[in-house]
Amino acid sequence: MSQTSSKASAFDTRVPAYLQRLERTTDAVLPSASTDPERLHQAIRYACEGGKHLRALMVYAAGEALGVAVENLDAAACAVELIHAYSLVHDDLPGMDNDDLRRGRPTVHKAYDVATGILVGDALQTSAFEALATTNALDAEQKVKMITALAHAAGSLGMVGGQAVDMASENLTLTLTQLESLHARKTGALILVTCQLAAIAANAPENVCSALDRYGRCIGLAFQIQDDVLDQIADTATLGKTAGKDLAQHKSTFPSLLGLEQAQQRANALFDEARDAARSISAEAEPLLWLADFIQQRNH
Amino acid sequence: MSQTSSKASAFDTRVPAYLQRLERTTDAVLPSASTDPERLHQAIRYACEGGKHLRALMVYAAGEALGVAVENLDAAACAVELIHAYSLVHDDLPGMDNDDLRRGRPTVHKAYDVATGILVGDALQTSAFEALATTNALDAEQKVKMITALAHAAGSLGMVGGQAVDMASENLTLTLTQLESLHARKTGALILVTCQLAAIAANAPENVCSALDRYGRCIGLAFQIQDDVLDQIADTATLGKTAGKDLAQHKSTFPSLLGLEQAQQRANALFDEARDAARSISAEAEPLLWLADFIQQRNH
Repeated sequence: MSQTSSKASAFDTRVPAYLQRLERTTDAVLPSASTDPERLHQAIRYACEGGKHLRALMVYAAGEALGVAVENLDAAACAVELIHAYSLVHDDLPGMDNDDLRRGRPTVHKAYDVATGILVGDALQTSAFEALATTNALDAEQKVKMITALAHAAGSLGMVGGQAVDMASENLTLTLTQLESLHARKTGALILVTCQLAAIAANAPENVCSALDRYGRCIGLAFQIQDDVLDQIADTATLGKTAGKDLAQHKSTFPSLLGLEQAQQRANALFDEARDAARSISAEAEPLLWLADFIQQRNH
Repeated sequence: MSQTSSKASAFDTRVPAYLQRLERTTDAVLPSASTDPERLHQAIRYACEGGKHLRALMVYAAGEALGVAVENLDAAACAVELIHAYSLVHDDLPGMDNDDLRRGRPTVHKAYDVATGILVGDALQTSAFEALATTNALDAEQKVKMITALAHAAGSLGMVGGQAVDMASENLTLTLTQLESLHARKTGALILVTCQLAAIAANAPENVCSALDRYGRCIGLAFQIQDDVLDQIADTATLGKTAGKDLAQHKSTFPSLLGLEQAQQRANALFDEARDAARSISAEAEPLLWLADFIQQRNH
């Protein structure tokens, strides 16, 4: 592999087109803002605005690495972003993290009200499964496999379970193993499933699936370590969400358990392992390498 | 049709077996209460206990009327009950109806906490789609059609949209048309989809689907009118949830718009229309007739 993080990347040039496809797909899946009940539909769309769309880009990158036609990835990219958006809206609610700021703007329950926040999250989750079920680009077997994988990643054994553990862990000091297990569910499961959805779209063989899984797991954990680091060192304006929350909520974080420098080293080692896994998949893994670099270099 | 509401019904004798199948299916879909995170999984199971399971029985009744093998109905029956259970947990939250009592017991957020209530509802919704995606009894095409139908019924154009309109209608006097439209979404959509899921399991022809739709729409609206009536005339102990809430929340109801007697007459006329629709479907419509009678005669 000759690509390094400093070189121009072919995937890089396609990112705007992928984000445009994501926007078009999402726009087609969600009812328009003028559909009755209008306020709810406006709030649903508000919840989907902004964000880096890393999870959608991971679907496109993994799919590209496996040679999948791009139209076979749109529904999956849209679905993971809808699940992610719903989880943010619910996590921000007063009964959960009670946060006022998200993606640099008021959270849904602040811009609207708590009831709307609950309902927006509920509707976005529904729309994620609807996006997969109603696409014309996949066969029924693929849709069912994708829905199964996404449900597993999003549900009580995945993202929702991780959030429950996270809520229960405030004011506790976790072991590193416990913290990794929490985040493998809370953020890792949805990042991992982006790779699995692409593998389903590709009808990929077992060895490719397991290498992609390794890539997804490493990226997921590295992403979260980095998130903890950024929460500690970045400011609210850069993050677009309240900085310093982990400390304020007395949460165990990778920096609090390992120290800042060691946490960063651990993230870097995981990004390297992700790149190794990517290179083992195919000679076309450049999109996955680019994405590892892109995430590693983010500052919010 | 020789059956009348006063005669013993064959479907009646099969109800316990259907409820047992529902319980077994749900038990298999949901992680056990001892699965990590245990508290979340206990709360998820708590939320599924009790209830009359009318929606599941409608799936079985409609399926029986169409000659569907019972194992092809289990996932659909389970999925609609999971969606219903999730909607109750979220509707009871402080940011929504703020209710302490459900099915004669503390609501999930009272028995646990608000965060758990939010997460339990989220996980139950996920499990509903997972139940349909992972059953062995249906082919992939049927699963995709069922997921599409259920998502449409549950989402912002159906149940969630209806709840949003309901929240926005407190302290307003609606027209009868507005109230019917609200309830066609809030409660009607999920009742209607029970018939649609059975029709998908049966690969039913268009004319049967449309007669079943008429049955489902009539039952859905009649059910809600009756709910409004019961909220006004029954006590909290009988209902298992707080009685008299509509009045306390200044909500438009069918009795408030039509008067109690006329509301009851309207419900009865709709039950009759549902029975007409059922008889037009097949000579095996006895389960649907029984269910119309059963719902008409309920007192909670």
